[in-house]
This record gives sequence, C-alpha cells and structure tokens, in this order.
Amino acid sequence: MDKTKVGIIGLGTVGSGVARLLLDFGDRTGRHAGRTLWLEKAVVRDLAKARDCDLPASVLTDDIEEVLNHPEIEVVAQLIGGLEPARTIMLKLLESGKDVVTANKALLAQHGPELFDRARELGRSIAFEASVAGGIPIIANIGQCLSANQIESLFGILNGTSNFILSKMHEDGAAYADVLAEAQRLGYAEADPTMDVDGADAAQKLAILAHLAFGARVDWQDIPRTGIDKLDVADVRYAQEMGYKIKLLAVAQLVGDGLELHVSPTLVKAGTPLAEVGGPFNAIRVVGDAVGPLLFYGAGAGQMPTASAVVADLIDTAVGRTKITFKTLELWSNRQARVTANDYAQAKGRFYLRANVVDHPGVLAQIATALGRQQVSIASVLQHEAEEGSQVLPLVIMTHETTEGAAAKACEEIAAFKSVQGDLVRMWVRG
Amino acid sequence: MDKTKVGIIGLGTVGSGVARLLLDFGDRTGRHAGRTLWLEKAVVRDLAKARDCDLPASVLTDDIEEVLNHPEIEVVAQLIGGLEPARTIMLKLLESGKDVVTANKALLAQHGPELFDRARELGRSIAFEASVAGGIPIIANIGQCLSANQIESLFGILNGTSNFILSKMHEDGAAYADVLAEAQRLGYAEADPTMDVDGADAAQKLAILAHLAFGARVDWQDIPRTGIDKLDVADVRYAQEMGYKIKLLAVAQLVGDGLELHVSPTLVKAGTPLAEVGGPFNAIRVVGDAVGPLLFYGAGAGQMPTASAVVADLIDTAVGRTKITFKTLELWSNRQARVTANDYAQAKGRFYLRANVVDHPGVLAQIATALGRQQVSIASVLQHEAEEGSQVLPLVIMTHETTEGAAAKACEEIAAFKSVQGDLVRMWVRG
Ligand SMILES: NC(=O)c1ccc[n+]([C@@H]2O[C@H](COP(=O)([O-])OP(=O)(O)OC[C@H]3O[C@@H](n4cnc5c(N)ncnc54)[C@H](OP(=O)(O)O)[C@@H]3O)[C@@H](O)[C@H]2O)c1
Ligand SMILES: NC(=O)c1ccc[n+]([C@@H]2O[C@H](COP(=O)([O-])OP(=O)(O)OC[C@H]3O[C@@H](n4cnc5c(N)ncnc54)[C@H](OP(=O)(O)O)[C@@H]3O)[C@@H](O)[C@H]2O)c1
Repeated sequence: MDKTKVGIIGLGTVGSGVARLLLDFGDRTGRHAGRTLWLEKAVVRDLAKARDCDLPASVLTDDIEEVLNHPEIEVVAQLIGGLEPARTIMLKLLESGKDVVTANKALLAQHGPELFDRARELGRSIAFEASVAGGIPIIANIGQCLSANQIESLFGILNGTSNFILSKMHEDGAAYADVLAEAQRLGYAEADPTMDVDGADAAQKLAILAHLAFGARVDWQDIPRTGIDKLDVADVRYAQEMGYKIKLLAVAQLVGDGLELHVSPTLVKAGTPLAEVGGPFNAIRVVGDAVGPLLFYGAGAGQMPTASAVVADLIDTAVGRTKITFKTLELWSNRQARVTANDYAQAKGRFYLRANVVDHPGVLAQIATALGRQQVSIASVLQHEAEEGSQVLPLVIMTHETTEGAAAKACEEIAAFKSVQGDLVRMWVRG
Repeated sequence: MDKTKVGIIGLGTVGSGVARLLLDFGDRTGRHAGRTLWLEKAVVRDLAKARDCDLPASVLTDDIEEVLNHPEIEVVAQLIGGLEPARTIMLKLLESGKDVVTANKALLAQHGPELFDRARELGRSIAFEASVAGGIPIIANIGQCLSANQIESLFGILNGTSNFILSKMHEDGAAYADVLAEAQRLGYAEADPTMDVDGADAAQKLAILAHLAFGARVDWQDIPRTGIDKLDVADVRYAQEMGYKIKLLAVAQLVGDGLELHVSPTLVKAGTPLAEVGGPFNAIRVVGDAVGPLLFYGAGAGQMPTASAVVADLIDTAVGRTKITFKTLELWSNRQARVTANDYAQAKGRFYLRANVVDHPGVLAQIATALGRQQVSIASVLQHEAEEGSQVLPLVIMTHETTEGAAAKACEEIAAFKSVQGDLVRMWVRG
C-alpha cells in the first residue's frame, strides 16, 4: 500500500489523540484513504514530558526543522494553540511545501486571510475541520455537502464549556460560580476559562463559519458578544418557569443584504432541538434555501472527537480531496467577501428583560412608558417575589419584536430610574 | 469559467428540482465548483407533459441516445425510480463514459454490487447522496467525515412517511388508517404507500448505510423488518403513558464480530433526540469509537431537499472529489465485505409486549410462567381497562433484557393460550 508521510506539531490533548489514531488504527485509515498515513515525526517542546500516546523513539523530536526539512513529509497536523509561534510555524510549513491541517480556531479567526492567501500563492492547502465544533463535521457539511444551497441562517451552540455550565445551572439551580468550579474539577473547563465563558471562543468559531457559509470576512473581535459569566441563576429559574432554556447561541443569518451576527445568551423554547442540547455537547442548526433546516449534534471538544476531525482532514489531504476543495472554495480570498455584517442595533427580535425594582406604586408604569418611548412593546410581565431579606423585586418583561438598539436604549434609560437598582438583564428570545 | 456539461434522465419530482437548481442558480454552483454546471440535456418519456421547471427547448428530449452519444456530457443525474429500465440505463451511461449521480435507493440496494463493479471496470464513478435520508448528507458524513472512526452503531429514522404517520398518531390519538389517508391528502404518502409503511424503503436505505459504515454486503430483503402498517393506536397510547414514543427505527450495530441489523417499530424514551424527531423528518444517530455520538437531522425527502443532495454530488463529481472517494471506498467490492449480519434471534434488548386477555384468575400467572420458560423476565406489567363494549383486557408487559428469539417464542406460546385473543404485539424498547 502507498504511504503518505505525516508530521504532527504539538502533542497535547489533540495531538496525542491524533497520534493514537494513526499508530493504533493504521488499517482503518488505510481502508478509507486507500493508502497508509505514516506518522513520521512529532514535534514537542519538552522531550522528557509524559505523552498520552506510545511513540516509537525515532518519531519524537523537539526540532521542528526535522519536519520542515523532511523531503517526504507531505502533510502536517499543526496542533499548537494560540497565535504565536503557531502562525510563524504555519507559514514555515507552507513554505516548506507541506499541506497543513489544523484545529486552531484562534489562529484562523485572527490570521485567516494571511494564511490562506499564502497557501494559495504556494499551491498548498489548509484544512480546519477540527477548528469548529470539534467532532461535528460542520466544515465539510457547509463547505461541500450544502453547496447547492444559499445558507439562510446558522444558529450554533459552539462552546461546550458554556453549555455544560448552563445545563448544570438549569438542572441543579446552582449559581454560576459553583457550577464553574465543578466544571473545572470535571475537566470541562480550563483553569482560565475566560475565552470560553465570555463568548470569545464562540465568536472565533462563528467568524470561521460566517466566512464559510456566507463569504463574510469579519474580525471576530468585531462580533458583538455577551458571555455567560455574569448570568444570574435567578434568570435561569425565571426562563425555566416560562418554558425556556438559556443557551449561548452564536447567530449568523441573512437579513436583507447583510448578516445578523452575534454571540448571545438566549432564551430558547424548551423542547426544540437546540434547547435540548445538554452537557458539554455542541449543535448547529443550519437552514439552506433548498434543503430546509438541518441539525448537526455531537461532541464539540475532547481528545478523541477532535482527533477524529483532524484525521479525517489528514485523509482528505492525503487522497487529494482537500486540494480540490481548497481551490474551489477560495476561502478568505477577496473574491469571497460577499456579505458584510449589519448594524447590530438594527437586529430584530424579542427580548427578555429583568429589572430589580424597589416596590412602590407607579414604577411599572414608569418602566412601561420608557419602553414605549423606544417603541418597545410588552408581551408579558412577571412580577417575582423578592429574594429573602431583600427589598427589591425582580420584574421580568418579555417584549414583542423590536430591535436590539431600541431594547438597549430603553434598558439604559430604565436603569437610571431611582426605583431601579443596578443594570437591567437583557437576553434574546427565540422559538 | 470552465463548463462541465450535465445530463438529467427523468424530470419527475427530483429531476425537475435538480434542473431548477442548475438553471436558476448557476452562479451558486459556479462559486462552489469553480466551474459552471451546464444542463445540456434532460431526458423524459413524454415530451408533452408539463414539467415543474422552465427548460430551454433544446434541452428537453425523449431520446436517451442524445445523452449517451453526446461527447461533451460528462456527468449524468439518473433520476428514474424502480429497477428497470433504471438499471439498464445506468449501465449504458457508465459504458458511454459518463459519471453517474443517482437518488435511486431501490436500484442500489438491489444491484449495488453489479453497478459498482461495472463502474470500477470502466473507470467511472457513482455518487448516491440523495439515495438515503434525502437532504441529510449522511453518505458523505459516513463515507468521508468519519473515516477515522470505527462506526459502532447507527440508528435511523429513514422513512419520512412512516414518521409523519407515527407522529400524527401520537399527537392526535388517531387510528393508523385515518392518519394514512390524511398523509396521502397532504402529499406525505404516495397513493400506494406499501414500501414506505411496511419497512421496505427503510430496509433498502439501511442496506446502503450498513454497507458504507460497516462493509456489510446484505440483500435488503434479508433484513428482518416490521412495518407500522399493523400498528394499533392503543399501543401508541400505552407507550405514551409509559414515557415513550414509537418510531420506525432502522438499526445497524456491531455486536461481537457481527451486525445487528433490522427495521422495527420501537419504543424510544421521550425527550431523547430520536424520539423528538417529528413530522416527515429523518434523523440518524451514529456512534463512532473516536467521535462518540453524533446526530444528523433534516428533511428525508421532498423535491428541493433531495435536489440539494443530487446537486452536491454533481459538483463533487465535476470537480473530481467523487472520483477519489469512489476509488478509495471500493464500495460493494469484495474487499469490502468485512462484516456479516448476526442471527436476528440472538439480538438482545428489552421488549414491549401486549396480549389481549380474557379476564379470569390465573391468566397473568400463566403468561408469566410462559415468559419464564424462555428466560424472559418481566420488568413491569400494566393492566389496562377493557375498550368499551369489549370483554378482553389489554395486558402490557415490559421485559428486562432478553433476546429477540426468546421474546418471539414466548409470544407464540402465549398466543396459543385459550385466555389470550389474537397475536401478541411485540416491539423493541430503547433508551
Ligand atoms: N482540546 C480540545 O478539545 C480542542 C478542541 C478543538 C480545537 N482545539 C484546538 O487544538 C489546538 C491544540 O489544543 P490542545 O488542547 O491539544 O492543546 P494542549 O493540550 O495545550 O497542547 C498544545 C501542544 O502544543 C505544544 N507546543 C506549544 N508550543 C510549541 C512549540 N513552539 N513547539 C512545539 N510544540 C509546541 C505543547 O508542547 P508541550 O507538551 O511540550 O508543552 C503541547 O503539546 C488548539 O488550537 C485548540 O484551540 C482543541
Ligand atoms: N421524491 C423524493 O422525495 C425522493 C427522495 C429521495 C430519493 N428519491 C428517488 O429519486 C428517484 C426519482 O424519484 P421522483 O420522486 O423524482 O420520481 P417521479 O416523480 O416518479 O419521476 C420519475 C421520472 O422518471 C421519468 N422516467 C421514467 N422512466 C423513464 C424512461 N424510460 N426514460 C426517461 N424518463 C423516464 C419519468 O418520466 P415522465 O415524467 O415522462 O413519466 C419521471 O419524470 C427515485 O429513485 C426515488 O426513489 C426520491
């Protein structure tokens, strides 16, 4: 059987999973690729560190030149996180004639245009299935399988850590900080979970999907985002009472000629498929104009699910499919900048608002008047009991359809009222 | 932009959808293929018949030779149903040097080995995304995206007509015959729905998936199957009371060295993703050893969802990806016959049994004894009220894990009791 020699840079969680699939299941990759994917070199920083895979001694090295200068290594899985040295290494790999596979969403969301342009100039390819939604093959599905469609919308649960925390808050009624601590104990959250819980990780993935599905070229940092790190468990309870679950949704949908694009905690109707995605799982609902709604569900992270996506890319690259796809899709090329993001303030939807009010006559009328001034009309009001020992009453308002901007402005105005304590909570409502 | 000239054979529901996508959205296919897919000829039987698409006059023909002998037509979508003349036309297309795309599951399930061998001999390819689960790209996902995995199990809702009927029986509590009539009125069921409701259509699709995912070469007619055509709405009600929904599940899962393979009405725990697939939708739950559980959900039939899959295949074929995949997968070649089906009687699981009993003392003990003789142990018993005007009482038994064979034998024995009327109802229970 023919061989394709493969290199791996970085033997952390994902890298060692990839090594295991290549080393332990060569027959399997052989069957699907019609050739052997031969792990020739794996580059690490620290040779002495214990690895989560058994490597032949000749494979491990701390010298990246052994990959760059290896004439027979054709494909390299670049599995280092962060921007540098990942970016420099990626460019060097391309310049040494290697096709690259990566799981690094931060790198692509930040430096996609540069990296893809360079790969094109050099006649090389970059595959990145693992960079979004881990084991769910969403890149191949949007980039290839749905080619006959204009994608109309894409709603994703793209961060497993946040989804695990939200699911637990719903199940146990526990506070955010307690659930986060538990998630860290169980390995579902990093020691520093900032990027996961503040929406940054989801925004990076959304930037990649929005480019692939709509041709939008956005800086992920320009995507309006709200995380779950300030979520009060009281709102989880109120949402539940009204038949909703709170999910961190990444949204990209065509509205007019532009794209509604944001990452937001959202009340999703209980019983709908996205609302029922529990634990650390991810899911993406895609609507295409020909195919209608599709849902993809699976593990969005984890060693072997992510390695599954990386190895699929290695196979695609080894057999030549990636080369074709890379060429036809022209990702991050100027030809592909087809759509831009709409002004977020114009985005339309229904909202959940909560104000903590001091109980005195006239406060509801005052709030309703402020909403009316911004043309925000009220669908329902729920006055909750004060928490024990507190004088303030949580007032929950569901609006009819309005714009993000109007809701935000009304909230700002209301927060300034003497009878209202602190900022208002504001979340999207879907379904 | 380069052109790939395309032919279509059959302009029915699917064919005219494909023609519309090619003719009305050429820019879109151009963008994804990097070339124009040019509809050169469309072959029908009756030139005078009204078509669901606007074709330039030069495109329509009733002479298939105009495709076979056209030197520039490279790819042909073969969208005629049934076995003949579909099979002969398929062979002729391959022999004239055309790559073929098809939605015809009956043809592949029956003549897959012959057609794929012939295509290989001739250096041609066959793509068949639309043949299973319509718009859901399950063929590409299993055949390519999950290549790093050993698939462990595959549970599918593969027939939209059955699922529509079952969902309606659950929602409205209406009898099978009434719901079928409604489904026919709404266009969700054909005038002759036999293949849909007796499990044959699902078995054909399962045969294709089992081959793709496990390398099993089974004749679809050898797959044990039970349809929904004899389902009593009373069982729907009892299932619901116990927290289950009845779904027609196509099952392929590795057990030991062999494959558990059947199509069966199954009680699926309410609230799990498969149980909540409503209306005419399809879904497939796939478990891979690396990726874990994945769920794919979408429209399993219909003009544009199916056309979406056909056009994705046309693009894949035009750009050269299909050629590679077809070669590496070696479908239906002898090399791929890796797994055979286990004896169905040995398949393990829990069962729902219902007997109609004449109410007299000792009948439950008699039934329990018969079950015990086959080592079938009882998890719970529900004695329901007699239907109005009837003397017989429905007795519902949920078993612990046992084998299909033991459950079947016990049911046979029990049906012979004087106090039991008619056959026993027997369904699988999952989740
Ligand atoms: N973990 C997941 O579930 C997951 C899911 C999807 C995507 N991803 C992405 O996959 C990438 C890798 O993630 P991970 O979880 O595997 O990270 P990780 O466990 O931290 O592993 C990173 C690896 O990179 C190596 N490395 C760092 N700098 C290096 C250098 N200059 N030269 C050689 N090796 C270097 C480290 O070497 P040492 O071990 O010697 O320190 C380590 O083995 C990230 O971009 C991440 O966002 C991860
Ligand atoms: N409909 C769906 O949602 C769906 C979904 C998945 C897969 N499929 C599969 O797709 C295939 C087509 O389905 P369909 O629903 O489009 O069927 P359909 O509406 O009955 O169309 C079949 C077409 O084939 C043409 N035809 C039959 N024999 C022919 C011959 N000898 N020469 C030329 N044309 C011939 C018919 O021509 P006339 O119009 O002139 O009679 C008709 O246009 C079937 O294999 C089906 O199983 C369908």
